[in-house]
Amino acid sequence: MSARKHKLINRPEDILGEMLEGFCAAYGDVARLTDNGLVVRAQPKAAGKVGLVIGNGSGHEPAMIGWIGEGLFDVNIAGEIFTAPGPERIVDGIRAADCGGGVLVCVSHHAGDLLNAELALELCEAEGITDVEMVVLYDDISSAPKGRESERRGTAGLFFVWKMLGAFCEGDGDLAAAKALAEKVRDNTRSLAMSLSSCASPITGEVMFEMPEDEMEIGMGLHGEMGMGRQKALGADATIDLMLPPILEDLPFAAGDEVLVLLNNSGSMTLMELFILYRRAAEALAEAGIRVYGSWIGPYATTQEMAGFALSLCRVDVEMKALWDAPANGAYMKQA
Amino acid sequence: MSARKHKLINRPEDILGEMLEGFCAAYGDVARLTDNGLVVRAQPKAAGKVGLVIGNGSGHEPAMIGWIGEGLFDVNIAGEIFTAPGPERIVDGIRAADCGGGVLVCVSHHAGDLLNAELALELCEAEGITDVEMVVLYDDISSAPKGRESERRGTAGLFFVWKMLGAFCEGDGDLAAAKALAEKVRDNTRSLAMSLSSCASPITGEVMFEMPEDEMEIGMGLHGEMGMGRQKALGADATIDLMLPPILEDLPFAAGDEVLVLLNNSGSMTLMELFILYRRAAEALAEAGIRVYGSWIGPYATTQEMAGFALSLCRVDVEMKALWDAPANGAYMKQA
Repeated sequence: MSARKHKLINRPEDILGEMLEGFCAAYGDVARLTDNGLVVRAQPKAAGKVGLVIGNGSGHEPAMIGWIGEGLFDVNIAGEIFTAPGPERIVDGIRAADCGGGVLVCVSHHAGDLLNAELALELCEAEGITDVEMVVLYDDISSAPKGRESERRGTAGLFFVWKMLGAFCEGDGDLAAAKALAEKVRDNTRSLAMSLSSCASPITGEVMFEMPEDEMEIGMGLHGEMGMGRQKALGADATIDLMLPPILEDLPFAAGDEVLVLLNNSGSMTLMELFILYRRAAEALAEAGIRVYGSWIGPYATTQEMAGFALSLCRVDVEMKALWDAPANGAYMKQA
Repeated sequence: MSARKHKLINRPEDILGEMLEGFCAAYGDVARLTDNGLVVRAQPKAAGKVGLVIGNGSGHEPAMIGWIGEGLFDVNIAGEIFTAPGPERIVDGIRAADCGGGVLVCVSHHAGDLLNAELALELCEAEGITDVEMVVLYDDISSAPKGRESERRGTAGLFFVWKMLGAFCEGDGDLAAAKALAEKVRDNTRSLAMSLSSCASPITGEVMFEMPEDEMEIGMGLHGEMGMGRQKALGADATIDLMLPPILEDLPFAAGDEVLVLLNNSGSMTLMELFILYRRAAEALAEAGIRVYGSWIGPYATTQEMAGFALSLCRVDVEMKALWDAPANGAYMKQA
């Protein structure tokens, strides 16, 4: 199956700037575009709190611009399509997020994101900006085996981290506590993705990889990275029955656990399908004695119009449930 | 360009039931599935308020199950894929929505939806259920010329009606006032859609219509109905410059007006593209002296994985702005 090659853009080199302008024009009550191209909270956080920053390649919207706001991130440094922002821009973001309580730089584990964040922290040190920490986050069980968790990619399961960390940083916890919380949520989160189709690069207009119509790939990354291999496309229940067990075994999740569930739409999956997939996931979790505390179903981190989804689970305790339940007000994450 | 034919479902005949089960399993805090297959508010409205009901064909998710909840609909009667529910089921829905203040049945104007709602109201009369009114809603300027507005189709612009009407029916207004409010919002709303691709029926697995890769159709209905014809696909700004003027001329919207803007994703359009499209729409509205009070950008009424969008405008006054700003709590419409 071929991907849709014609995108409704103007010039490829204007995508990032025009997208950020349009986003901030629509959601000016929540987010603001600075002169140096950062997306920041319209209403800054109170002085003394920990500032939260994330940089990422674009093309995954609503990630992460949609998650700027109260109870979420303070600053997003959006890079070009599928390209991490450079270290100087990350330092700009750190400066913008600083409201006196230190700044935590969140890194979704990909080589480019990590390298640029490390360089940014070196620049900060050289410039005398202290009180900055970095936390590296990952969740994709297909990208490295158990025991080598820190080599895994960051994917959609990190939205559990973002939500809880954002809520945490509205409180009085310090920078070290914020970093520890992020690591705690990460260490309780596991994801696995699948895809039925490729997608086209908005820059080149070319399909990013070839995908036969009757096959599916299990364990695909956010940029179409290969995972556990291809097989004949299955039905909804059979797909969940293939994907859920390795997730449960990896942590492992066990009877009596309480979990959050995310079905992330990578682009052109329908909600109709995701609800049918969710039905089997909920049933299978109940069979395993695992209680679902809450769920998200929809587009969180997309890969253009790729037709696929990721299933993510996060094991929660009392602290995490309270942070999950806390208010949030981003353009694409609203909770009273 | 071919559509994705393989959908992640089980048996086609189980789509509706399994989708509703999955949806209500995920969002049980907001919506509940009754024994007779209705999706109803988890927390019923206070006694004496006007009940709000809508029936619709499925396959357009999050419409309308995602809009059940506080400040929104009380009951959704979801039909089979692209098929309006029958009159007996609509009567069931009217009974379920009745909390003593009468029931308003909302109809998005399509032949099947209208016919079944009319039959349902006749059944109500025969069964002695009084205090039920129907309001027929439409917004798509491509489906009938100006002067024949009541022949137009209902499309994504009706979400302006749903939001304000839902908020209105949390108040003390009576059934006649609710109907009048719905008509007022409708009469201030105009929409125009476009598409770059077809989509596959989840029932047959076949593409619903053919669409060459380098063309776009302007004025497409929610089921792929033809509109104003095809032409070579354009860039983002040129597409808005083609679609916005006929919308503005139709009402007409004029300098000094305040409007709400909706860019509805019909399926597999990326948010990246929608933000770029929004940027030009906001710019062109400013050039016309029209002020944007608020905006929505995302999937409201989808047509499976069709790659397209609708642009909708609603002219607002003080009453409508207050209803737009009022709280709402549906699974896919949250506002504090």
